[in-house]
Amino acid sequence: MDRRKLLATGLAAPALLSTAWAQSPAPAPAGLAPTQAPGFYRFRVGQSLVTMVHDGQAVRPDPTQGFVRNASSEEVAASMRAQGLDPSRLVNPFTITVLRTPRGTVMFDSGNGPQTAADSRVGQLGANLAAAGIDTATIDMVVFTHFHGDHIGGLLDGAGNAAFPRARIIVPEKEWAFWMDEGQASRAPEAMRPAFANVRRRFAPYEGKVERIADGAEILPGLRAMDTSGHTPGHTSYHLSEGNAQAMILGDLTTRPEFNLTNPGWHVIFDMDPNLAEATRRRLFDRVSADRIRCTAYHWSFPANGTVLKEGNGYRLAPAEWSSVI
Amino acid sequence: MDRRKLLATGLAAPALLSTAWAQSPAPAPAGLAPTQAPGFYRFRVGQSLVTMVHDGQAVRPDPTQGFVRNASSEEVAASMRAQGLDPSRLVNPFTITVLRTPRGTVMFDSGNGPQTAADSRVGQLGANLAAAGIDTATIDMVVFTHFHGDHIGGLLDGAGNAAFPRARIIVPEKEWAFWMDEGQASRAPEAMRPAFANVRRRFAPYEGKVERIADGAEILPGLRAMDTSGHTPGHTSYHLSEGNAQAMILGDLTTRPEFNLTNPGWHVIFDMDPNLAEATRRRLFDRVSADRIRCTAYHWSFPANGTVLKEGNGYRLAPAEWSSVI
Repeated sequence: MDRRKLLATGLAAPALLSTAWAQSPAPAPAGLAPTQAPGFYRFRVGQSLVTMVHDGQAVRPDPTQGFVRNASSEEVAASMRAQGLDPSRLVNPFTITVLRTPRGTVMFDSGNGPQTAADSRVGQLGANLAAAGIDTATIDMVVFTHFHGDHIGGLLDGAGNAAFPRARIIVPEKEWAFWMDEGQASRAPEAMRPAFANVRRRFAPYEGKVERIADGAEILPGLRAMDTSGHTPGHTSYHLSEGNAQAMILGDLTTRPEFNLTNPGWHVIFDMDPNLAEATRRRLFDRVSADRIRCTAYHWSFPANGTVLKEGNGYRLAPAEWSSVI
Repeated sequence: MDRRKLLATGLAAPALLSTAWAQSPAPAPAGLAPTQAPGFYRFRVGQSLVTMVHDGQAVRPDPTQGFVRNASSEEVAASMRAQGLDPSRLVNPFTITVLRTPRGTVMFDSGNGPQTAADSRVGQLGANLAAAGIDTATIDMVVFTHFHGDHIGGLLDGAGNAAFPRARIIVPEKEWAFWMDEGQASRAPEAMRPAFANVRRRFAPYEGKVERIADGAEILPGLRAMDTSGHTPGHTSYHLSEGNAQAMILGDLTTRPEFNLTNPGWHVIFDMDPNLAEATRRRLFDRVSADRIRCTAYHWSFPANGTVLKEGNGYRLAPAEWSSVI
C-alpha cells in the first residue's frame, strides 16, 4: 500500500508516523544551539535612530501581595488574569533607549550594571550593545531619568570603575539634589539607606563632571527634559522633536503596562510620592494618547516602545509593530 | 561661572547646550550601521524548541476599501484607529514557525520564497533561518497549513529547484485534493487561475514524494493535524502536546489580530469560504482562550506568538513576553 495513501486515511496515520519516528535516531540538533536572538531593536524618529537595548529581566514572586498599595490581592490577581498574566509572578523587564542623532549618541539610563552571578537574568546591556554594534566609547552622553538602582547600576563596570569615562553624565537637578542631600539621607527610613549609599557609590568616579539640568533644558537640539516627578522626587522624561516626528523617553512613569496603564490609579510600592506619580502619569498619558506619540519605557516588554491608547478608565499599550525595515 | 551650575539654571541651559553641540563636528556613527536585529525568536514548549522566523512584510494600501467584505470603510477605519493603526495602510507580516522536537525538526509553511527585487520586503526567511543557526538541510519535514502563495512560495529556491530536496513534504489531504483537482482549476474564476498554476509549479519538483495527511493525523508524537478549513478548503492547524505543555500553530485563522481577533465576524477577501472561516475561527479561539494555549500565527506581528483573550464580542491577542531566557 502506498505510504501517502496510508497517511491520507487518517486514523491509520498516527501509528505509522509514530513508529517511523520511534525507529529513527533522534537527529542531532546541528547548528541549533538554543540561543535567543540578541536583545536590540531599531526604529527611526526623523533623522534620529533609536536603538532599544535589553538589560534582562527580574521576576518578583506573588505581585498580588503588598506590591500595589491601594488595590487588594484579589483585584490585582483578577486584573492580571484578565490580561493574560500569571498572578503568581511578575516579570519586570529592563530596556535602555539609545538615541543616535546627527549631533551625538545619547544613552538614557545605564541598566543594572554587570552582574557576577552566573544565573543572573539582568546585566545583559553590555552584550546587547555589542550585538547592536554600539561601542560604548561612542556614547557621548548618558542621561538619567532617575536614580533607582536598576537605572544607575551600569555607571560602574565590573571592577567598580567608571563604565563611561569619556561620556558626559547628565542628571536632573531635582533628582541629584534629593539623593545627594545629607539631610534626606540621614532622615531616610532604614530600608532606604542602601539606595542613598548606592547613588553615592555609582556616581563617585564621575565626581566633578556630572552635569545637572532643570525642567525644560534642551540637551541636544529637539531633545528636552520634562519634569515627571512622583516616581522619584526628580524623575524626568525626555521629549524628542524633529520636524513632524516626535517621541518620548518615559522612564518609569509606569511599571508594566498591565499594571499602570490599565490601572493608572494603582500605587505600586516603587512610586515614592504615589499621588504625584499618579497625577503625572495621567497628565502624560492623556497627552501621548491624544497626540499618538511613540514612547519608549524602561519596564515595558522588550522592545519596550509603542503608542498609548485611552481605554475605559485607563490606557492600553499598542506595542509598535516589529519591522525589519528601519 | 561653573558649567554645571549654568545647566541647572534651566532657561540658560538650552542655548548653552545647543551652542556646544553646534560647534562639535557630528560624531561619526562608528559601528552603528542601521541594521535591524535578526528576525528570529525562540521559546520552549515542554521538550521542544520553537523558533519563529520572519519572512518580511507586505503593505496593502487603503485596507478600508474592499478588503473586508462585510464591513463598511468607516467601520474598518474606526476600528483600526481605535487600535492604534493607520487606516491608510495595512502591514501584513509573515512569520514561519520552526519546531525542533527530540524526534525531528519541522517547519510549518515555507514563506514567500526568494525574491529578486532589490527593494523587496519579503523573502527574508533564508537569511533569518541562517541567523538563527538553522541549516535548512536539518529540516526533516515541511508541513503546510494551506496553499496560498505566501505559504508555498519557498518550496522553490531562486533557481526554481526544490529548496528542500531532503525534507519530507507533508500536506493536508483536503487542501491537496482541492488545488490539484483539474475540475476545480478549470471551473475557477479567471482571477484564481494563477493560484492554481502556482500550486502546481511550487510542488512540481516534489512529485511523488508529497505525503498527504487527514484531520487528526499525528505527524510526530504529540503533534496532530486539526482541520480548520474555511480560509481555504483544506486549511489545517497543528496542535502540539507534550506532558502539561501545549501550543498551536494556527496558520491563517486570522489576518492581523486587529482585524480578525477584535472583529471575528469580519470576512476578509482572502477567506475562500467566509462563513466557514468565521465559524472555524470562533470555535478555535473559544478553545485557545478558555485553555490559554500559546499560539503562533502566520500574520501576527513578529514574533507572532501569544495567548488569545476573550474581550467584548471578540478576542484580543496578548503577545507573549519577549524573554532572553529560553
